[in-house]
Amino acid sequence: MYSLDLLRQNIEKHIALSETEYKIFRQFFKLETIAKKDFFLKQGDICKQEAFVIDGCFRIFTLDKAGNEHVLYFAIQNWWLSDIDSFINQSPSYLSIQALETSEILTIGKANKEKAYTQIPKIEKLFRIMSQKFLAATQRRIIQNHSLTADQRYLHFLDNYPQISEKLTNIQIASYLGISHEFLSKIRRKITNRK
Amino acid sequence: MYSLDLLRQNIEKHIALSETEYKIFRQFFKLETIAKKDFFLKQGDICKQEAFVIDGCFRIFTLDKAGNEHVLYFAIQNWWLSDIDSFINQSPSYLSIQALETSEILTIGKANKEKAYTQIPKIEKLFRIMSQKFLAATQRRIIQNHSLTADQRYLHFLDNYPQISEKLTNIQIASYLGISHEFLSKIRRKITNRK
Repeated sequence: MYSLDLLRQNIEKHIALSETEYKIFRQFFKLETIAKKDFFLKQGDICKQEAFVIDGCFRIFTLDKAGNEHVLYFAIQNWWLSDIDSFINQSPSYLSIQALETSEILTIGKANKEKAYTQIPKIEKLFRIMSQKFLAATQRRIIQNHSLTADQRYLHFLDNYPQISEKLTNIQIASYLGISHEFLSKIRRKITNRK
Repeated sequence: MYSLDLLRQNIEKHIALSETEYKIFRQFFKLETIAKKDFFLKQGDICKQEAFVIDGCFRIFTLDKAGNEHVLYFAIQNWWLSDIDSFINQSPSYLSIQALETSEILTIGKANKEKAYTQIPKIEKLFRIMSQKFLAATQRRIIQNHSLTADQRYLHFLDNYPQISEKLTNIQIASYLGISHEFLSKIRRKITNRK
């Protein structure tokens, strides 16, 4: 089953699990399909489950009071979906997570995640390492937003999301970069002319 | 020893350690004094240790290519100091961490931290929980930067750092908020007039 292998490969980048440990962990997950434009999480709701992306593409964004969308990041195959703030505190989410195409995910609920931590101590290590890496990547992005020009941030985006940049609209990419889509078009023309 | 108690109290907000487990963990730390204006970490260097703040105040900032400073956050008593990106990858840091006053910290090196994870499995849980909470707080701050006005961000800052806002210069607070110090003065006058 390819989905099972993907999750296992993802875990084994960080820790080694025995066959038995992996089986126990795997049974806490449920395979689900999310249709294009459907939401894994809606801003204001409580994030009751996390998910591992088997296939597809998601947009993680927040709506400000004026109704403007701000894309925080995109999640594709091999990424994890969660509003960590809402999930750990069981408080209303400030984020929405929407499928940009029909997607397959493995979901795990909060109670099962706690069981996994208790029954398989290595799962503590797994999420300790993954949280630290995601924290490092988030911090790197904050620093880049301070220190890089919009052109440089766009080139970084293409490096980070080579598989999906072509699936996204100009408006979605511009929102992720924190610039207008007119400005993004200007940057794209400049880069094309340079080649 | 008050410093020992502070670390223990901080840990016990997240997990329960036995007397023996705490003693093993504690022996990996070294008490150090950092003079005012000295650096715990300099941008470009590798972050070889993390620290727990017993007393004092630190500024965590990055310098962009034009030489402008951007303050990411401040750390006071009970906070942890680290460039997580540089520490886990042992790569050059994009951050500097500087003492704003003479400070006392408990430092732990990378090799000792790995030993702590191995010798006391609950330490995995501790840093899993702390990393997830810090990630949630970082994400909340990114969202607030998108959705709140500068006035609201300043009021949030006063709530988050009640003990230190009076120790900081206008320029340091303005850099944290991502605004000019002239604009911060305007906000302060507006808030004072409202009272």
